[in-house]
Amino acid sequence: MVQGEIIATGTELITGRVADINARYAARRLHEAGLQVQAITLLGDRAPLFQEILTLALGRSRFIIITGGLGPTEDDVTVAAAAQALNLNLFEDEVLLARIRRCLKERGLPWEERYGRLAVIPQGATVLDPGGAACGFSLKHGDACLFFLPGVPQEMRTLFDAFVLPSLVDWTGGGECLCQRTLRLFGISEMQLQEVIATKAEFQQGVTVGYYPNFPENHLTLTVRGRDRRVLEETMDRLTACLAREVGEVLLGPEEIPLEDLVGRGLKEQGLTLAVAESCTGGLICHRLTNIAGASDYFLGGVVTYSNQAKMDLLRVPKEVLAQQGAVSAQTVQAMAQGVRGLFNAAIGLAVSGIAGPTGGSLEKPVGTVYIGLATSRGVQARHYLFHGTREEIKSLSAQTALDRLRRELKP
Amino acid sequence: MVQGEIIATGTELITGRVADINARYAARRLHEAGLQVQAITLLGDRAPLFQEILTLALGRSRFIIITGGLGPTEDDVTVAAAAQALNLNLFEDEVLLARIRRCLKERGLPWEERYGRLAVIPQGATVLDPGGAACGFSLKHGDACLFFLPGVPQEMRTLFDAFVLPSLVDWTGGGECLCQRTLRLFGISEMQLQEVIATKAEFQQGVTVGYYPNFPENHLTLTVRGRDRRVLEETMDRLTACLAREVGEVLLGPEEIPLEDLVGRGLKEQGLTLAVAESCTGGLICHRLTNIAGASDYFLGGVVTYSNQAKMDLLRVPKEVLAQQGAVSAQTVQAMAQGVRGLFNAAIGLAVSGIAGPTGGSLEKPVGTVYIGLATSRGVQARHYLFHGTREEIKSLSAQTALDRLRRELKP
Repeated sequence: MVQGEIIATGTELITGRVADINARYAARRLHEAGLQVQAITLLGDRAPLFQEILTLALGRSRFIIITGGLGPTEDDVTVAAAAQALNLNLFEDEVLLARIRRCLKERGLPWEERYGRLAVIPQGATVLDPGGAACGFSLKHGDACLFFLPGVPQEMRTLFDAFVLPSLVDWTGGGECLCQRTLRLFGISEMQLQEVIATKAEFQQGVTVGYYPNFPENHLTLTVRGRDRRVLEETMDRLTACLAREVGEVLLGPEEIPLEDLVGRGLKEQGLTLAVAESCTGGLICHRLTNIAGASDYFLGGVVTYSNQAKMDLLRVPKEVLAQQGAVSAQTVQAMAQGVRGLFNAAIGLAVSGIAGPTGGSLEKPVGTVYIGLATSRGVQARHYLFHGTREEIKSLSAQTALDRLRRELKP
Repeated sequence: MVQGEIIATGTELITGRVADINARYAARRLHEAGLQVQAITLLGDRAPLFQEILTLALGRSRFIIITGGLGPTEDDVTVAAAAQALNLNLFEDEVLLARIRRCLKERGLPWEERYGRLAVIPQGATVLDPGGAACGFSLKHGDACLFFLPGVPQEMRTLFDAFVLPSLVDWTGGGECLCQRTLRLFGISEMQLQEVIATKAEFQQGVTVGYYPNFPENHLTLTVRGRDRRVLEETMDRLTACLAREVGEVLLGPEEIPLEDLVGRGLKEQGLTLAVAESCTGGLICHRLTNIAGASDYFLGGVVTYSNQAKMDLLRVPKEVLAQQGAVSAQTVQAMAQGVRGLFNAAIGLAVSGIAGPTGGSLEKPVGTVYIGLATSRGVQARHYLFHGTREEIKSLSAQTALDRLRRELKP
């Protein structure tokens, strides 16, 4: 198998000031595409060590991705250092220079001498130009492929997705291209998911499956390679449909749409409004719902009733229910759901009550005991759950489960 | 200056499945202590490449920290590979073996052959035993120091803090030790902070200052080295006090206490209760307050009033105020603060209303316009802010600013 490596440069990486995002992103995408990364090296902005590492990498890797150090300042040493290590001359690329002048002009910035550095690249380099954003370049050296990308994560990703991955897939696969999809799942463990996939013939040949824990969800990346993009996309649709049949409702959908957005789309499509009553989740459900732009179209509001008094006063939970069943009970959460539905005059009332811990648990109702209630025009229901984890994990699991119950309720 | 490097092993690191945490943690702590890390290498579980990298590292670094691959399974190759590269024999450490047997027994687990691997270390190694948790070991090789640590982040940090950092500080400083403190600040930019520190003589000699952006806060790590721990701690208290005098209220306190905890402590000390009314923050303030265990002692609850109707019905915001001043106005947020204070019968009512975007802004009230209101027994006040950023950033800045206003209000 073709082996490659990644070199990420920047003093902030070796002082621990910021976490590396670029190398990890590239490593994941390459791995999913069946390309092996054997090493990731993080370095400061010192040319000699970079040259040493680059030379060693050329001896053992067929592709090398280098990020950072392409900017206009003195500590951007990557281009000159690489040219020296590869024994290449540098030249000023006129097209690139014109492009930089144009970009500066468009942003109303004056020309400065140092911007000239951005147009200097090694002999034989191919400019990677995404149009309107920072450029990188690629180089062939012996039988190795080198890619130089900017260190700003957004710029790096744009170039990586547009040029680096497709060209490596094409190069190593003899003209192949790639189709990838990441799916969100909730309510199934990675091991269960692996078992499901192991039994389905569709996934056994030519499909790379990557599992990524993303608490409280599990994310799954499917990758197929081939020569015809349209065929690949059909294959991907077939794989997604097969997975949906096997795992059912635990499949939330594509990575791009978070659960709170799915819920919002469901409400909007059906012209329904929502109000939320939270106890142990403490506002997290409302917070997630309102992260979606335009949530005010369907989300009317919520209450966080941390005290019993508030549950009685605001949500009209009967005093006897609280006294006899307790604040964490099916009856209470049903009353909360109905209460908040009435309070906001909403089509749907969603309510959560539970014990997030670390204290407050009992033998009968241990920490992690959670009830979720849902009131609609068709009536009210409640379900009992027992979650495990820290206070924040129990809050997160409770909020996710409540949103997921609503999503399932909204399914046509 | 003494140069070192870090090698982190584990297939999950080079497939991008998980982010490296260990190397970054070590790099930051070392940098703060004045020790330079020149490279971080992430590798899979393949012995030959690890040996190649280790040999090269020995040629250029005085200390090398290696994490991962110390476990009992087949793919834990670090110990054997390192011994081979360093030309050292392996032996079974009897003390370590007895310790492993004792640990298994305490957890009620049966002995298995593979656990024997955990007691095998290179000749001349010193066991780093934190008591009751996973061990590591150190080695001297020529004039270099090597440290082998487990890959589980919590175990790695325990050993790093207890053994690696103190021994490197002692070794490079000729018997010195270290005192570090990380402080939270909100409402001051990194550049302003740098300017303040540049003018104060106290910080000019023998103090390392590290700046870490932690949106929406800035964190600052102070490090001093010396021979007498008591003197160092006094110096640290003096530095903290000096900083507090210079920057005033923007200093929140030590890293260990998040802002919502500071607010909670303030309320508890003064025997006050709190209720919160949120519009654009959408529940985030309540969520943060309830992340603190025991929040129910002072936090009574909150409302998320996304619609004008809810602002009128629940919080008794006058219809005329909403019609004349708008939902995002000083008058509305004052009425909301008073309304929620009355609704929950709380000592303090905190309210936020604003435009989180990306739509909903106008020339007069652009996206990012936020009002924060505070109602106490002494009356009600409101303040106007203009924040910049994405929807989530504006929510985050608004919630942080609201909590911070309350913190300042609670200051004795």
